[in-house]
Amino acid sequence: MPTVSSLHRVTLPYTNSMRLVRISLGPRSYSIHVGEGLLPRVGAECVKLGFGRACAVISDTCVARGYAAETMASLERAGFAPHLITVPAGERSKTLRQTQACCERLAAHRLDRGSFVVALGGGVVGDLAGFVAGVYLRGIRSVQIPTTLLAQVDSSVGGKTGVNLRAGKNLVGVFRQPDLVLCDTSVLATLPQRELRAGLAEVIKYSVILDAALFRWLEINLDRLLELDQRALTEVISRCCRLKGRVVAADERESGLRAILNFGHTVGHAIESVWHYGKYVHGEAVAIGMVVAARLSTRLVNLPEADFERLLRLLERAGLPTSTPLTSARKRRLGAVMRVDKKARDGEVGFVLTPRIGEALWGQKVSKASLDHALNRI
Amino acid sequence: MPTVSSLHRVTLPYTNSMRLVRISLGPRSYSIHVGEGLLPRVGAECVKLGFGRACAVISDTCVARGYAAETMASLERAGFAPHLITVPAGERSKTLRQTQACCERLAAHRLDRGSFVVALGGGVVGDLAGFVAGVYLRGIRSVQIPTTLLAQVDSSVGGKTGVNLRAGKNLVGVFRQPDLVLCDTSVLATLPQRELRAGLAEVIKYSVILDAALFRWLEINLDRLLELDQRALTEVISRCCRLKGRVVAADERESGLRAILNFGHTVGHAIESVWHYGKYVHGEAVAIGMVVAARLSTRLVNLPEADFERLLRLLERAGLPTSTPLTSARKRRLGAVMRVDKKARDGEVGFVLTPRIGEALWGQKVSKASLDHALNRI
Repeated sequence: MPTVSSLHRVTLPYTNSMRLVRISLGPRSYSIHVGEGLLPRVGAECVKLGFGRACAVISDTCVARGYAAETMASLERAGFAPHLITVPAGERSKTLRQTQACCERLAAHRLDRGSFVVALGGGVVGDLAGFVAGVYLRGIRSVQIPTTLLAQVDSSVGGKTGVNLRAGKNLVGVFRQPDLVLCDTSVLATLPQRELRAGLAEVIKYSVILDAALFRWLEINLDRLLELDQRALTEVISRCCRLKGRVVAADERESGLRAILNFGHTVGHAIESVWHYGKYVHGEAVAIGMVVAARLSTRLVNLPEADFERLLRLLERAGLPTSTPLTSARKRRLGAVMRVDKKARDGEVGFVLTPRIGEALWGQKVSKASLDHALNRI
Repeated sequence: MPTVSSLHRVTLPYTNSMRLVRISLGPRSYSIHVGEGLLPRVGAECVKLGFGRACAVISDTCVARGYAAETMASLERAGFAPHLITVPAGERSKTLRQTQACCERLAAHRLDRGSFVVALGGGVVGDLAGFVAGVYLRGIRSVQIPTTLLAQVDSSVGGKTGVNLRAGKNLVGVFRQPDLVLCDTSVLATLPQRELRAGLAEVIKYSVILDAALFRWLEINLDRLLELDQRALTEVISRCCRLKGRVVAADERESGLRAILNFGHTVGHAIESVWHYGKYVHGEAVAIGMVVAARLSTRLVNLPEADFERLLRLLERAGLPTSTPLTSARKRRLGAVMRVDKKARDGEVGFVLTPRIGEALWGQKVSKASLDHALNRI
């Protein structure tokens, strides 16, 4: 049975300087800069990468209001000719139709193979703009500037891009690494509390599957993150990026190890789908999914009950939901959705379980009875 | 100045047995089978590759009429559960909208990451289905069964997939190698003469840029190809695939050498565009483009006038156009189109020229005056 226990054992040095995380993927390697006030430096960083002059900033209407002018100005100061494309905020922009609209704009603005795309926004913008950069002219370069905690710790690493089909989320996309990621912690100040808490769900996920020390640190310091302490945010974001970077470096195209990152996501995705993405944001659904996965873990891989309780308490303190009302009709639909998940093969769902905090097992077969039992308890 | 002269020196052994061409791209290596009557073997070959059960055959309405039943039957005999998707024949199916329609069908038919797509048709189907396979679930496996000579010698090697934007052809796509290619020479019997001749334009292109011996062979044996001599077709198709395979292996993502494959294409694409893809099929436009490139070559890289004349004669014998009426308005538009070509950078077009038959030079800067001079002579 494959297992991963704490891929690393670094201490957490609490300084407030910028952190640099290098994602090692051979010719597709790139750097993630994490810190306060990085946004105005985007232009200068792009110059270092030798990008061509024509470029596009893709953002959504909400984020653009706050940060597009600063981004465009930085690029212009550095000698680039940026073109701003804004899409409506929200999941509904993740479509092939929107992909087409963006690509037509890139062509009209004469972006060529030396050009690049800057994704300025949360996960939706990152996924869409990353996909646009991945398919326009069969792929041009891209810079990710994630503006939510979730996007900073999750979508900015790994190269997954994509849009939704009517049949489901993220069913169309490409694996495509960005050339640079800037995680500016100061932009989190304008993030709604609910989005911040949702991002913490992913932070907690990394600690559960990979890093017991981080979990303990979160138990002590969670409030600093909720208060937007910039040092704590910089530290935690860079640590999560490093953790995810190591997993992705070991398994770029998701054939094995990388599956552990889906801890809480099999049920989480299904919950989002059953509520038509209306009731819960992604991180909230993942929080509930983690509770289900942890509950399964106590039954199937001997996760100590005390560890289960610690996870439950941490999620609650982060203001995340840990249960959801499930009618039997919803429960049936939940099962059906899980079976068409991208990770399903021949109708069988592989779960990620945790035998103790800081470790993960993937590809775990879970019987319908066990799943029902766990679902009945949330 | 980069130059390539005859990447290989193999003789042409004229037997009518099947030919196997191995495309060496590390983990993305695959085989091309060339020969008479291969179609009924597709199922058995897919079994060897260990594909999952669910699969889809993507074809167009014309090709499906002749060959879909045989393909589906072969897959079913081998234990697969194929789902047939037909799109309207013609370039207008190469859209993101059609991509979406195909992907929704794959999802409805429950294709998962172990599944595969079979592209059954000419270049349009190959490009569209290859792109669908390249983005569905961020990429599943694919089999190409090209049914035109052009697709057999060209689109089946190299992994370029994609669809069109309103702004231009092939502006959206991915590099994605198939897992198997079957070139069945017997299906060429139902190919319209015009399409066969258009395919010969690409065959002649390979000989001009890479293989003087092949050029000489074509001068002697062209009629056998026009008469659909299966031995001659098998030999020429496998030889072209091998030539292209070596170029692609040396430069998979088109950063240098691979550019030579665009001999005749810079002007050719522009001609197609200026006539809105109505007057000429691709191979015909490339034939005219080769004449322009060869004319430029006599002026700029000392292509002997005798070689220019040999090329002109061979194209004429193949029934291909070697000139086109150009009003001055069309000539201006031709120049504009070339500058937004995917291969253009910062508005500059790099030409592929030939200093003698069997050799090519790429990234050649051509002044507006030289280009006008050459265009005035076609």
